Amino acid sequence: NAKLKIFTLNSNKKLAEEIAKEVGVPLGKSTVTRFSDGEVQINIEESIRGCDVFIVQSTSGPVNEHIMELLIMLDAVKRASARSVSVVLPYYGYARQDRKARAREPITAKLVANLLTSAGATRAIVLDLHAPQIQGFFDIPIDHLVAVPILSDYFLTKNLDPSEVVIVSPDHGGVTRARKMADRLKAPIAIIDKRRPRPNVAEVMNIVGNVEGKTAILIDDIIDTAGTISIAANALMESGAKEVYACCTHPVLSGPAIERIDNSVIKELVITNSIQLPEDKHSPKIKELSVAKLLGDAIVRVFEEKSVSTLFD
Amino acid sequence: NAKLKIFTLNSNKKLAEEIAKEVGVPLGKSTVTRFSDGEVQINIEESIRGCDVFIVQSTSGPVNEHIMELLIMLDAVKRASARSVSVVLPYYGYARQDRKARAREPITAKLVANLLTSAGATRAIVLDLHAPQIQGFFDIPIDHLVAVPILSDYFLTKNLDPSEVVIVSPDHGGVTRARKMADRLKAPIAIIDKRRPRPNVAEVMNIVGNVEGKTAILIDDIIDTAGTISIAANALMESGAKEVYACCTHPVLSGPAIERIDNSVIKELVITNSIQLPEDKHSPKIKELSVAKLLGDAIVRVFEEKSVSTLFD
Ligand SMILES: Nc1ncnc2c1ncn2[C@@H]1O[C@H](COP(=O)(O)O)[C@@H](O)[C@H]1O
Ligand SMILES: Nc1ncnc2c1ncn2[C@@H]1O[C@H](COP(=O)(O)O)[C@@H](O)[C@H]1O
Repeated sequence: NAKLKIFTLNSNKKLAEEIAKEVGVPLGKSTVTRFSDGEVQINIEESIRGCDVFIVQSTSGPVNEHIMELLIMLDAVKRASARSVSVVLPYYGYARQDRKARAREPITAKLVANLLTSAGATRAIVLDLHAPQIQGFFDIPIDHLVAVPILSDYFLTKNLDPSEVVIVSPDHGGVTRARKMADRLKAPIAIIDKRRPRPNVAEVMNIVGNVEGKTAILIDDIIDTAGTISIAANALMESGAKEVYACCTHPVLSGPAIERIDNSVIKELVITNSIQLPEDKHSPKIKELSVAKLLGDAIVRVFEEKSVSTLFD
Repeated sequence: NAKLKIFTLNSNKKLAEEIAKEVGVPLGKSTVTRFSDGEVQINIEESIRGCDVFIVQSTSGPVNEHIMELLIMLDAVKRASARSVSVVLPYYGYARQDRKARAREPITAKLVANLLTSAGATRAIVLDLHAPQIQGFFDIPIDHLVAVPILSDYFLTKNLDPSEVVIVSPDHGGVTRARKMADRLKAPIAIIDKRRPRPNVAEVMNIVGNVEGKTAILIDDIIDTAGTISIAANALMESGAKEVYACCTHPVLSGPAIERIDNSVIKELVITNSIQLPEDKHSPKIKELSVAKLLGDAIVRVFEEKSVSTLFD
């Protein structure tokens, strides 16, 4: 493995260390600090000439800082004559602006893909993009991993009776994801069908599917302010669910999220470490699973030029 | 002027308003805010189809926020079918990493130029780049304006006797700039010749040129932490200067800058509004000049497809 190097920046050092351990290489030596005026200063402290370099960075908050760190690192690595530079993005931020929903909106998911390529990325490894279409925004090879198996395996350890479980998508966009988890747990699905009867009238939460007496498991890709998920959990309990779990790949958890989860009827929130939670964002209800093995395996397979597709499910 | 539109973001709204007034158009209606997770949210509230759009933004601190705002705005404007999109950068940040001084360093001045182009900029208007070579980093047309005439004109209003004035460059890199100012003030130049006799020995400040009994005017492009400029001012007083003024185009003024200037022997620090100073960065010693007319004229000339070169000096 002489030519495989893994570097990390400031967003998710813990996960990067776990990944390096899985791969069996030490993390590349580098520092990422700031000049007095706030500009990013990067030092790469070992030669990477001719190497296949993997840079692990989630574009989580502070998102603009983390993106600029990544772009500047890409520039430095490219100029240092690396043979290839793969960006490993456990969380790909700016993904929710992925189409023009209104006039004159930007499409930031495409912009960031272009910026990464322009700065020198030759390949991307990503996890649970907000929309799978975002793969097409990259003009470089991209491997798209999914965390459903990791989340599902955790719930399997609870030895729940499949006939008493229902997997719930909190919106129409997430039904495919819920279906995948349901297959693994051999359980049926349900869908929260939000609709606004008239403008300026509160949304109605209708549940499509049977949840009565069941353990409901809500699954989403991102939980941000946790508004939707807490309301959905309430609706499930009101419809007779026995208990409600929630899970997601990317715990953005901004603003009032932690408070909302603590105060919600959710029994446990299962997340992955795609985003490193800051000290002030912990809750006794949160269970964190690691994606280090998944990402580490993908890195080794990319490096050895083997198919990554077996990691998809 | 139906098709000329000027927009601004969050770095320098005051200057953008002044520029719009000079040009004789209202500022384009738009808002730049943040989503709950810190991602930039932009709303352009008027049609720009077929227009020549100018976006005024300094990439000053918080530099990574301001760069991302600009890139996302460029993406939105491009997708909204503008005919052309010019970035007007009163201050171009990340310019001091403009070469590989050490192994494996990034060249951020080139990276940012590429990012702007990749996001959709079709032209750039800049002011006093840290090195004029950075013009060559842009693969789009660029107009490079200089503030020396504005700074010089201010000192001319003081009616100093040219034979009692000396223009001083605080380092070797700034001699050309000092020479330009000296021509306008009909004064001689001097140079602060810093050198370190041996490693780990304090630098020696030697002054090349005659400053005795004179009003010394230090000129630099950027004043950042104000370390160099305060020490240079001391050295000038010790060499017999009567009084010391300092001036610069870009008042970065990070960290201890304001304190250092307040406590220095500098009589007055003359700056431009290329960077909008936050509330806590004011000092009674600071005199601010406006570059609004210079930038406004450049915008009009670019729009009318006239030569901008007369604005150079
Ligand atoms: N960072 C963000 N936080 C909250 N909402 C966002 C963010 N980025 C985009 N959006 C909005 O979320 C919507 C897309 O969400 P979705 O329908 O889940 O794909 C768009 O209409 C965006 O305006
Ligand atoms: N934002 C910054 N703040 C302070 N120093 C910087 C910054 N960016 C680059 N530098 C350093 O400044 C040096 C270049 O300055 P100069 O010789 O004035 O062009 C380089 O060696 C950089 O390491």
